[in-house]
Amino acid sequence: MMLVVLGNTEISTVPGISVAGATPELTKLTPVADAEYLFHEKPLTIDTVPVTPEGHPTPAIITKAAKELADFPVLIVRGGTYLSPLIPHVHISGAVGRDFRREPALPEFGEIIKRAKLLGEELNKTPIKELVIGESTPGGTTTAQAVLWALGYNAKTSSASPDNPRGLKEKVIREGFERAGIEHGGLKDNPLEALRQFGDPMMATVVGIALGFRRKVVLAGGTQMLAVSALLKALGEDLSRFMVATTKWVVNDKSATFIETAKEIGIMSYAADLDFSNSEFKGLRDYEKGYVKEGVGAGGATWLAVKAGFSPEEVSAKVEELYRRLMGMR
Amino acid sequence: MMLVVLGNTEISTVPGISVAGATPELTKLTPVADAEYLFHEKPLTIDTVPVTPEGHPTPAIITKAAKELADFPVLIVRGGTYLSPLIPHVHISGAVGRDFRREPALPEFGEIIKRAKLLGEELNKTPIKELVIGESTPGGTTTAQAVLWALGYNAKTSSASPDNPRGLKEKVIREGFERAGIEHGGLKDNPLEALRQFGDPMMATVVGIALGFRRKVVLAGGTQMLAVSALLKALGEDLSRFMVATTKWVVNDKSATFIETAKEIGIMSYAADLDFSNSEFKGLRDYEKGYVKEGVGAGGATWLAVKAGFSPEEVSAKVEELYRRLMGMR
Repeated sequence: MMLVVLGNTEISTVPGISVAGATPELTKLTPVADAEYLFHEKPLTIDTVPVTPEGHPTPAIITKAAKELADFPVLIVRGGTYLSPLIPHVHISGAVGRDFRREPALPEFGEIIKRAKLLGEELNKTPIKELVIGESTPGGTTTAQAVLWALGYNAKTSSASPDNPRGLKEKVIREGFERAGIEHGGLKDNPLEALRQFGDPMMATVVGIALGFRRKVVLAGGTQMLAVSALLKALGEDLSRFMVATTKWVVNDKSATFIETAKEIGIMSYAADLDFSNSEFKGLRDYEKGYVKEGVGAGGATWLAVKAGFSPEEVSAKVEELYRRLMGMR
Repeated sequence: MMLVVLGNTEISTVPGISVAGATPELTKLTPVADAEYLFHEKPLTIDTVPVTPEGHPTPAIITKAAKELADFPVLIVRGGTYLSPLIPHVHISGAVGRDFRREPALPEFGEIIKRAKLLGEELNKTPIKELVIGESTPGGTTTAQAVLWALGYNAKTSSASPDNPRGLKEKVIREGFERAGIEHGGLKDNPLEALRQFGDPMMATVVGIALGFRRKVVLAGGTQMLAVSALLKALGEDLSRFMVATTKWVVNDKSATFIETAKEIGIMSYAADLDFSNSEFKGLRDYEKGYVKEGVGAGGATWLAVKAGFSPEEVSAKVEELYRRLMGMR
């Protein structure tokens, strides 16, 4: 079974931070639109799939392709978003992560973890042996890097843009650290405070679910899921039942430190070998140039499809078909 | 796995119709309080478990007892309620059934069924072989009787009071039929219109889930689940994969027609043989006099506990223990 946890953070509306939407304001709608697209031909809250400002389609198209091929069950979880998606979903909270330059990001972290843990405990009583948990959280690579830095990692997180706004991210994080009065590594013994100060509701929800569900957990995402892994480790969880599943585009991202940080944390990883270089659509071909890269559990969904006997090539071909369907609708 | 679907209908606030709350106004909170109690020592939205005006505890205590004994997973589903429960739950809608004496009860029935069906379809992809679906819907026996009558059944539904307000129920239903311009059986070929005119969001949600989940479904409830069964039958579903699981108190209720109506619809039934006659608490002993009887899937939860190897006596003993815990908290 796959869960997709939706989160928003005000950080995504800082100009230049996130391209997970055509405009900074539209990034607020991306999580619900991603979720709705997984279950319908197009989103319900907005009329088209989320795109970057340059028109690259959401990685939800990969997750949807894998889901349609392998027919695994998907449960949407609203960790904390501006809107409620117009499809069935598990409600955890409506709390949105605040701008950590001005105030603690997530005063609600305790309640969110508690509720999410209850969900994980119930899922732990089902016959489900492995839980794949993806996410859709615009701006989430910045909160991830802030949490990783607070925990003492020298991580650079990836970005949905080929021009990773590293300088801007670091400036925003430094402002947050200044506001909170901490230094790099200053919260390495206090993971919950790192989450409260700099995190987002997606992280809190995934941490909670993973604390409640005691079997194998695949954290489906890139550097954001490394932040979740680091939190779980700092909370004393044995990481041997966890794996991070992402895409080759994240692993190959020279502007980030996926492999190094995964090693430093001590978590296994899997990189889905998707290839869009021969796509007839520029929006997909550009994935090979570092646009988008990951999200909505794309790598983990591919992992599930591969386990069900499909090849990454078949997933890539299905993505092509879905994109053709989307284009036909315009 | 057990689902508990929460619903509200304005009908529960008609004085004298429902005792699923200490006052008609408090019946609005009963579904969320029931759900929260299943996961905590007491509800979160209110400070005590729902009781009848005479102080008899909610049947959620039976469901909780069976859950604690047999440790089966429970997923709360918000079919349509005034409030959102403060625990993880699947959100289907916030639509509350309207007073059918004045207007159609559920214009949102189509959207609710569609969303709930998506949930059922996802659950159908899991290894889960049997779904037990309970409900908490104050006033729901009146909407159930209205739907059964509109479909042509001569059913009398049960009530959480030993003095079933049959005259009042019938008066309310007649007023609804007059407003809608129909007679008894007038919608027997149009189940969705019966649901729209006289139903409640719980019914629409359970119908949708049952249409999406294609394996065995245990409808955990009394005469309300007979209304759901009648709707499913009228929609062309083969009822051989369905069963209604209730309690002996519903089956023995002389003011209602459980057995006759189940036979007329053609659905199997199971009656949990719980016995509170030797309880040290009047609130529980009174169940034997016809107070409360059923709700929150009490009969179906007992069914799951019995299948897991526990006897109805053990469930009854566990209820006694839980009630003692509640009393100790006062």
